[in-house]
Amino acid sequence: MMTTNASFLEEVDGFLIDLDGTIFKGDSLIPGADQAVAYIKSNQKQLVFVSNRGNYSRRMCCDKLKKLGIAAVEDEIILSSTVTARFLKKHYPASRVWPFGDPGLQEELETHGISIATVPEEADFLVITLHETLTYHDLNCAFQAVRAGARILATNTDKMFPAKSGLSIDVAGMIGAIEASTGRKTEMTFGKPSTFMAEAALERLEQLPERCLMIGDSVESDIFMGQMHSMKTMLVLSGNTKKEQLDIVLTRSKPNYIVESIHDLIQLN
Amino acid sequence: MMTTNASFLEEVDGFLIDLDGTIFKGDSLIPGADQAVAYIKSNQKQLVFVSNRGNYSRRMCCDKLKKLGIAAVEDEIILSSTVTARFLKKHYPASRVWPFGDPGLQEELETHGISIATVPEEADFLVITLHETLTYHDLNCAFQAVRAGARILATNTDKMFPAKSGLSIDVAGMIGAIEASTGRKTEMTFGKPSTFMAEAALERLEQLPERCLMIGDSVESDIFMGQMHSMKTMLVLSGNTKKEQLDIVLTRSKPNYIVESIHDLIQLN
Repeated sequence: MMTTNASFLEEVDGFLIDLDGTIFKGDSLIPGADQAVAYIKSNQKQLVFVSNRGNYSRRMCCDKLKKLGIAAVEDEIILSSTVTARFLKKHYPASRVWPFGDPGLQEELETHGISIATVPEEADFLVITLHETLTYHDLNCAFQAVRAGARILATNTDKMFPAKSGLSIDVAGMIGAIEASTGRKTEMTFGKPSTFMAEAALERLEQLPERCLMIGDSVESDIFMGQMHSMKTMLVLSGNTKKEQLDIVLTRSKPNYIVESIHDLIQLN
Repeated sequence: MMTTNASFLEEVDGFLIDLDGTIFKGDSLIPGADQAVAYIKSNQKQLVFVSNRGNYSRRMCCDKLKKLGIAAVEDEIILSSTVTARFLKKHYPASRVWPFGDPGLQEELETHGISIATVPEEADFLVITLHETLTYHDLNCAFQAVRAGARILATNTDKMFPAKSGLSIDVAGMIGAIEASTGRKTEMTFGKPSTFMAEAALERLEQLPERCLMIGDSVESDIFMGQMHSMKTMLVLSGNTKKEQLDIVLTRSKPNYIVESIHDLIQLN
């Protein structure tokens, strides 16, 4: 299904690789994804994993990749929680944040030196992400933060994600609850296809965007982000986008490569 | 603060009385509310309690009133869960419902003979109410119901309610979560000031609306509903509406009576 097969590795110096639907699905490795990553590394290419997951920290993500047989260090991972933390550190270093999401968000914020508010009412920002351990108390604390004046940020805006039990409600639900009850809107979001993710990845890779390849399963998140930043793009059919949807999906923008899974890139050379 | 003091009891045969902020606040009786209710009953007047609470059943509400020293039977109580159940029973008697809210909602639906779906995916309707025991699992089940085709109803749309710990996030949060994540909208809501509540109350009271008095603490819910149905209205300042807000609140519609609390009606005669 590749659209070109010439000089693949010669044209690419940096790889941006999505996680959910590209490397793993739930707790399972996508077959051959480990080999593809090893192949990229063995060819002395730079790579960075870029994921819209905001409820993980990079440490948690590293642990998960290791369990799946993929060696990675934290600096090779950029999550939407990571770029949210970077943004706050750069522009609002004195701010106090109330995290509304799974514990991975708070861990990632703290790793970047962001202060966590001790009570919702003292927070300057509410940061919303997926909250798979949500309770009414958590929801009400987030509500109290905004009622007391906290501005709303969200790591990403995904409506659903592939959980073990199937497609499940994602951060859009948490955002909707707070916006509808407070009448306030989210000011900024940070996940793909935002430039915050692309900027952080290119900074890590130290390559020109034209020499980078964005690999992912989502046209809206992965392919659009790559294209808008002049990268090459590779759509994998192992996740959100199915072969039957391609006609609709591709009316707007054609990726450079369309493959069944990331493993196929080994054969492109 | 009354605007008239002549022949109060002679003009009123039926009383519609709000609960939160009018009879009690959290778990505490509003001082003298029990005496006011007893006074109405001792004068052989009809009364019905009308509350936007959709996460209680009438049985639970009766128990609560009894604990506060107010004798009431279930037929004297109309909750937003009650009118939602009545609507479904009348117009969709064969429907299966997935309740998304505290257990009181399901109890009230079942009391009215509504079938509860065994799994979210088989529900014809999702009924949303306040969910003070919410978990991510509950939220995701509601999401799955709508994804599988369930239409959305909500008992009411309140943004916040006076909990023991202060104003807390209400059903608008639960609605917002589902609407934002599914892209679907709530078709109908049933709480005050909707005509469903007024209709159920008037049916119970068996009085002409002109001979009824709606007593409550909310201009938007209680006073508007009363006025739109040609009832007399009494605004109490023991709940949501404060004396300082009256100038703004009353530009649109003036209640017949404004009193500190429901207890003041005893002195109106």
